[in-house]
Amino acid sequence: MNNFIYQNPTKIIFGEGQIERLSKEIPADSKILMLYGGGSIKKNGVYDQTTEALKSHQIIEFGGVPANPEYEILMEAVEVVKKENIEFILAVGGGSVIDGAKFISAASKYDGDTWEMVKTRAKIDDAIPFGTVLTLPATGSEMNSGFVVSRRETKEKLSMGSPLLFPQFSILDPNVINSIPERQVVNGIVDAFNHVLEQYMTYPIGADLQDRFAESILSTLMNDAPKVLENREDYAAKANFMWSCTMALNGLISQGVPTDWAVHAMGHELTALYGIDHARTLAIIGIPHYKHNFEAKKEKLAQYAERVWGITEGSLEDKAKQAIDKTEEFYHSLGVKTKLSEYAENIEKTAETIEQRFTDRGWSGIGENQIVTPQDARMIVEMSY
Amino acid sequence: MNNFIYQNPTKIIFGEGQIERLSKEIPADSKILMLYGGGSIKKNGVYDQTTEALKSHQIIEFGGVPANPEYEILMEAVEVVKKENIEFILAVGGGSVIDGAKFISAASKYDGDTWEMVKTRAKIDDAIPFGTVLTLPATGSEMNSGFVVSRRETKEKLSMGSPLLFPQFSILDPNVINSIPERQVVNGIVDAFNHVLEQYMTYPIGADLQDRFAESILSTLMNDAPKVLENREDYAAKANFMWSCTMALNGLISQGVPTDWAVHAMGHELTALYGIDHARTLAIIGIPHYKHNFEAKKEKLAQYAERVWGITEGSLEDKAKQAIDKTEEFYHSLGVKTKLSEYAENIEKTAETIEQRFTDRGWSGIGENQIVTPQDARMIVEMSY
Repeated sequence: MNNFIYQNPTKIIFGEGQIERLSKEIPADSKILMLYGGGSIKKNGVYDQTTEALKSHQIIEFGGVPANPEYEILMEAVEVVKKENIEFILAVGGGSVIDGAKFISAASKYDGDTWEMVKTRAKIDDAIPFGTVLTLPATGSEMNSGFVVSRRETKEKLSMGSPLLFPQFSILDPNVINSIPERQVVNGIVDAFNHVLEQYMTYPIGADLQDRFAESILSTLMNDAPKVLENREDYAAKANFMWSCTMALNGLISQGVPTDWAVHAMGHELTALYGIDHARTLAIIGIPHYKHNFEAKKEKLAQYAERVWGITEGSLEDKAKQAIDKTEEFYHSLGVKTKLSEYAENIEKTAETIEQRFTDRGWSGIGENQIVTPQDARMIVEMSY
Repeated sequence: MNNFIYQNPTKIIFGEGQIERLSKEIPADSKILMLYGGGSIKKNGVYDQTTEALKSHQIIEFGGVPANPEYEILMEAVEVVKKENIEFILAVGGGSVIDGAKFISAASKYDGDTWEMVKTRAKIDDAIPFGTVLTLPATGSEMNSGFVVSRRETKEKLSMGSPLLFPQFSILDPNVINSIPERQVVNGIVDAFNHVLEQYMTYPIGADLQDRFAESILSTLMNDAPKVLENREDYAAKANFMWSCTMALNGLISQGVPTDWAVHAMGHELTALYGIDHARTLAIIGIPHYKHNFEAKKEKLAQYAERVWGITEGSLEDKAKQAIDKTEEFYHSLGVKTKLSEYAENIEKTAETIEQRFTDRGWSGIGENQIVTPQDARMIVEMSY
């Protein structure tokens, strides 16, 4: 096990009817910016629950944060924060809205160019406190301190983080899942599943507890998330799904272990090129990634086969191969296609384009031990066609 | 799953050589009270590492905190804190020293009688910040906000806690295990194992992730902790054991689920009556407790049998019974005896005495759903003879 430093101060308020606790979590005299997305919260009741809970607070609303939070729009919110002397930001939404709140929190207190802040991953010395009401289990942003922000103008999608950017609190009411479209629930399952795989499917380092925790989340997602799709009234399944998504990317399982994240790097390119949903790009890339890097990952693949899929027969290699197949079958069972050609046309140059982009960025190798060179990325993407 | 609120702000600094980070974690101008126990840290190098790391800080030492932290002694430390205007407490030790630091932290800022503070579990409004260097994996006190304090004068052993009593940081260097006597390593294994069981071995509530996390800790303790006994140079095993003890009682696995703690309540009495090591009382009481409450706990016992012990044959009842036997065998494999008569003589009245004590305290029932009446406690303790 590698040395690690772990701290996560976010207060999780979990369960049915917890949104009404909002008024206790934000100081009564704080002027609040309420940030949300395209307006689904006005249809599903979360907007009403939130404003009712905060009826004694002073709120300024800022809606319209798009799916990949856009810098220009977020900078409008930063202007509002400064002009109105906002003291607390409340993000009501999914990962995009929460990520947006993190950017706004840091940018509002940053002296200097805020895009440079992100590009250089500047050290954050001050940030506006913020909390979240999660409406879409998937990204884990509700309990971590990182964010992604995009800029259409320069076609960039960048990430950064800071210990000052943990939410003060996050309210997780599993019943928000009731009104989420099936496509987004499925995306949440696949996203969280791949978050775990990126922190687990590397090579053995003897970190038994982290491994078992990762396997716990995978098993729970595998068992409970489909139940959510079958029956939105299954509260236990919704709660298990929601808590699994949070635990998948709140930092716990990555402590002291190598991590991969090459699947995300390649997947991001497919979203940039074809607008494919983020989670689905992970399903497209993950399968060939594990096949291409089989030798490096086979021990963990076999462990995953045994502990998550119950595959106990055969050689280590047999088990590892079966685990990849089982993973693909799992995606298919959720209605998620795993071939790029099922999502886009004229894809012949995709692999070459991605190789070139990685080369241009000077990425000599990504993934654990930098095992994925730009040439490997090309081969993996070709296998995904 | 029940609703829950979870927050744990303690910063964990984990790994080899991490004690030298101490100087970065405590403000340079803070006057420090360095609290420790019987002096084993002077033999195993931890004292030297700690004072070396803090050579530029102003430190006042307070040694001699006993195994069950004693109120009178801790109050002497409170006097030192007040007189010397101590601004930070550093606990260097195991659970007793860390628990002591928590009491001192709260008591030093408390207006009023400090024993009443504990007895009434008073709300803590202020506390002196503190951190820890853990020297004995077992109690989890390094990452939670509760403490136990004893008072010989009144023969009381009381517990309390406060959100203000999380350590600011805890340094966990697995190599401190090298010099721990075998008896204490074994106690740590059994203590942590029972901490998990108290939060897990109740009845199914559909909290799949919490269940799997609990099983992860049990499996890791079962697999790795004995390796520590075999070979103190096995760093991976030491690290897994240490991290498992912390995760066993840092609040995570108890969120949203029923908990038991009846084994601890009965075990405490055996320590009070016969001075038996705390962990070993849990081994003595746990086995008859699960047998006596078999009907209430059999579903979880069978799940534990399957997932932790790999018992897949037989009826639910068969598996549940085998799980109890496997648990007892595990304790025996560690050299831990599980019968009260193996620890003490003239034990005939023990069960009656404990029944009477519970009755006198007005405890009509303890454990999940208050299933253990004073009469049940008598029967369980009788079974332990």
